[in-house]
Amino acid sequence: MSRICLFPGTFDPVTLGHIDIINRSLGLFDKLVIGIGKNANKAPMFPDELRLEWLKQIYKDEPRVDAIIYEGLTANCCKKIGATFILRGIRYVSDFEYEKAIADMNRSLDPTIETIFLTCLPQFTSVASTLVRDVLRNGGNVAQFLPEVVLLSLKDSEKKPITKNVISKDLKKSFN
Amino acid sequence: MSRICLFPGTFDPVTLGHIDIINRSLGLFDKLVIGIGKNANKAPMFPDELRLEWLKQIYKDEPRVDAIIYEGLTANCCKKIGATFILRGIRYVSDFEYEKAIADMNRSLDPTIETIFLTCLPQFTSVASTLVRDVLRNGGNVAQFLPEVVLLSLKDSEKKPITKNVISKDLKKSFN
Amino acid sequence: MSRICLFPGTFDPVTLGHIDIINRSLGLFDKLVIGIGKNANKAPMFPDELRLEWLKQIYKDEPRVDAIIYEGLTANCCKKIGATFILRGIRYVSDFEYEKAIADMNRSLDPTIETIFLTCLPQFTSVASTLVRDVLRNGGNVAQFLPEVVLLSLKDSEKKPITKNVISKDLKKSFN
Amino acid sequence: MSRICLFPGTFDPVTLGHIDIINRSLGLFDKLVIGIGKNANKAPMFPDELRLEWLKQIYKDEPRVDAIIYEGLTANCCKKIGATFILRGIRYVSDFEYEKAIADMNRSLDPTIETIFLTCLPQFTSVASTLVRDVLRNGGNVAQFLPEVVLLSLKDSEKKPITKNVISKDLKKSFN
Amino acid sequence: MSRICLFPGTFDPVTLGHIDIINRSLGLFDKLVIGIGKNANKAPMFPDELRLEWLKQIYKDEPRVDAIIYEGLTANCCKKIGATFILRGIRYVSDFEYEKAIADMNRSLDPTIETIFLTCLPQFTSVASTLVRDVLRNGGNVAQFLPEVVLLSLKDSEKKPITKNVISKDLKKSFN
Amino acid sequence: MSRICLFPGTFDPVTLGHIDIINRSLGLFDKLVIGIGKNANKAPMFPDELRLEWLKQIYKDEPRVDAIIYEGLTANCCKKIGATFILRGIRYVSDFEYEKAIADMNRSLDPTIETIFLTCLPQFTSVASTLVRDVLRNGGNVAQFLPEVVLLSLKDSEKKPITKNVISKDLKKSFN
Repeated sequence: MSRICLFPGTFDPVTLGHIDIINRSLGLFDKLVIGIGKNANKAPMFPDELRLEWLKQIYKDEPRVDAIIYEGLTANCCKKIGATFILRGIRYVSDFEYEKAIADMNRSLDPTIETIFLTCLPQFTSVASTLVRDVLRNGGNVAQFLPEVVLLSLKDSEKKPITKNVISKDLKKSFN
Repeated sequence: MSRICLFPGTFDPVTLGHIDIINRSLGLFDKLVIGIGKNANKAPMFPDELRLEWLKQIYKDEPRVDAIIYEGLTANCCKKIGATFILRGIRYVSDFEYEKAIADMNRSLDPTIETIFLTCLPQFTSVASTLVRDVLRNGGNVAQFLPEVVLLSLKDSEKKPITKNVISKDLKKSFN
Repeated sequence: MSRICLFPGTFDPVTLGHIDIINRSLGLFDKLVIGIGKNANKAPMFPDELRLEWLKQIYKDEPRVDAIIYEGLTANCCKKIGATFILRGIRYVSDFEYEKAIADMNRSLDPTIETIFLTCLPQFTSVASTLVRDVLRNGGNVAQFLPEVVLLSLKDSEKKPITKNVISKDLKKSFN
Repeated sequence: MSRICLFPGTFDPVTLGHIDIINRSLGLFDKLVIGIGKNANKAPMFPDELRLEWLKQIYKDEPRVDAIIYEGLTANCCKKIGATFILRGIRYVSDFEYEKAIADMNRSLDPTIETIFLTCLPQFTSVASTLVRDVLRNGGNVAQFLPEVVLLSLKDSEKKPITKNVISKDLKKSFN
Repeated sequence: MSRICLFPGTFDPVTLGHIDIINRSLGLFDKLVIGIGKNANKAPMFPDELRLEWLKQIYKDEPRVDAIIYEGLTANCCKKIGATFILRGIRYVSDFEYEKAIADMNRSLDPTIETIFLTCLPQFTSVASTLVRDVLRNGGNVAQFLPEVVLLSLKDSEKKPITKNVISKDLKKSFN
Repeated sequence: MSRICLFPGTFDPVTLGHIDIINRSLGLFDKLVIGIGKNANKAPMFPDELRLEWLKQIYKDEPRVDAIIYEGLTANCCKKIGATFILRGIRYVSDFEYEKAIADMNRSLDPTIETIFLTCLPQFTSVASTLVRDVLRNGGNVAQFLPEVVLLSLKDSEKKPITKNVISKDLKKSFN
């Protein structure tokens, strides 16, 4: 029986912190599926398809990693793709409490699902997508927080803006 | 002098975690009033009246428990109903800090009010209304988190939808 | 049925923070028994009997409050004195986690026991006995942290030292 | 070289907790600039200009303190005003984690910026602007949480309402 | 390449909480070695050999689980047994911070070692060995916290005491 | 008036985390005095004089930094050296709560003393002296956690052991 794991998240955008967690988990699983959860309530900064494309490109040479977009309960997504593990990175104490509540809930919904927690390198601990988006919106330099695939894609987008949420003239300043 | 206590909250919906806290508190007070706070900023999933009805039905044979809807400051509601105690359940560390700040604020507004904290059974610790609503919205099975009165009411609502926030076709799946 | 509560602790020494919690709880219970737990592993700064005497003197005019010394499990002490409630003050987040674990354990040992948590006034939040003992040992001024009964007793002890743990020549400096 | 510090925040409204932090910091810096950050996503209760006026009036006799409104990254604001320090007050554990993540991010954006944390007096720990706004909206008494300049200004506003978010008839009740 | 994992701890005694974590981890690893760490500073309640025997007996029919006693750095023990994973259960927020610091340290000492965190069922969250030992010492009922193998072994020990730390006459009361 | 600050601690041994905090604070103070607190209850791994020597040597070219050994209350030490500031680094949430209680206590003892909190670089967050001592005792490699002055001194000590707590044959392995 192969070990299939779902790594659910928003990845808006995927950061070096996420990449660190994913790479560390590869020794544990035979297949890791990165699941971009659609959230009806929150408007993301970057479109779902772009976030999917970024993840697929980053792992194009790693056959064990796949990326999908999913809707609805994470536990249901696990069933659909045959995953019995959920991967989550924990950075902060407040993260941990929320993550534990979600893990308990998922275990209640489907007792065959186990949530695995990993911690990233200390230098990535504060690289939260929320903070990165804030820097991006204000034209700050994000080169040290994001994978090269994302950085190049964002540079390209200065010519043809990808999303209305990003003020393009500020974005230009972000990559000097 | 009788001991009257207000248990303020949103109860959107009331969960087995709330019921556990309420039942545990009954040895302490002569009268417990469950107060559904109206919050202008947050749109609840279930209408105020339905939430009130659920609570009233659950405790219809317990004369010490009553339920009301209130607006404005919790401290003012206490004064109106003659309560000198506020009851709060604490599940998580992050809950505790927020609850303590609110309790300090209420004590500042009215020094005669004392906030009492209880903890629920460990198995109910992760049964937060927020998570339950999320499962409900996505058609997951909520039978293990909610009182029977609420479950039956939700089953009924499949025929005649109670609220626009709940996508009724998903709700159907929640009670198989 | 009267509401009897045990307030277990070390009270080494009793501080204004303890007094604040005790006084706030008096509206809740018909009888509050302050239980000085004997701990074989920790050597207290002040002898059990002195700590008991302090508490008895502070509450000599309050018939609802009593103080005892007890050994063994707190749950057993509750049974012996007919208490169905345990009172605990919580100051900090780290307190809360430990207190919740103890409360869960006591509930496992005896499901009829309920632990009640209160918070003290913000100004007493940092008045931990450990810190007060440290100030005492180093001859600092403790007048703002301790009840008058304790302060007077400590002043007296300069002439006839009460405990070997307290270096008497430093203690003298503590009450200028 | 003089020590210039930015104290960024929303100050909606400025509370006695903020004032306590500011006054404590004055021994550390030659110049403290209070920066009211414009946040496109959150609608404040009080207009930027009013919040600025309050701060300027409170510190009109203290030449070391200035107040400004700024947009964009806090790190950029520091550069503009020549500040190499950022001041933040921490009240709660959950505050601390968020503040540390922001401080790490600011240090990544500009390694010459150092974030300094102070704690206020325990009695101001629960005086959060969010809670104060809630009391204000519901006509509660806020006299013990706000500086006199703000209290007087709010009393005046009963005649000529300053902001649509504040329901003026409730505000009247807040200052008896 | 097989996935070998070390589960380091004191297991003084092994509880149902430990067993829950171990059983949940079996889907992740090909081999799980439970490592009883010898700690020169702390005197355990039960002898190393007894704790080892308990673990070996509990898992005598599970070839994937082994138990050993080790001294020195956990990272060195991993190297010796060929483990590239360390397993830790996290129950509380304060656990998590300490565990993260240890995990960071182990990663610094040997970058090929990854620490995996699991959470146990909510009902086992408060079953800490420290609390169980306290109940045991005071003759309380521990049947709901410990595996049957341990319970039987402790009952036997009433006739022939296993350790001086356990007061045998109290132990008798623990198994009614 | 010059800004004098005391940085109290045990420094057993001083780590790169301490050094990071000290260096960051130098922009704030005219004089920083590192105070090695003598603690009657805890036996340090390294003698006071050695720890003092290490600090003095590390900062021998920085006239703003001095190091002393002190006994008794930290607030009294501040008075003696004319310091009105206490510096503390905070790494973890649990650190913060304890540090805040100590800071409140020091402010109660002497209202002219202000405690300043700084955070170190994320990569030093887990470099606690306790963990470093544990690695040292077990012969692990500590080169990445300690200043060069300390590393050289420890290497020297292989020939002539400095302290009984350190098992010299293990120490040899620590510096390959």
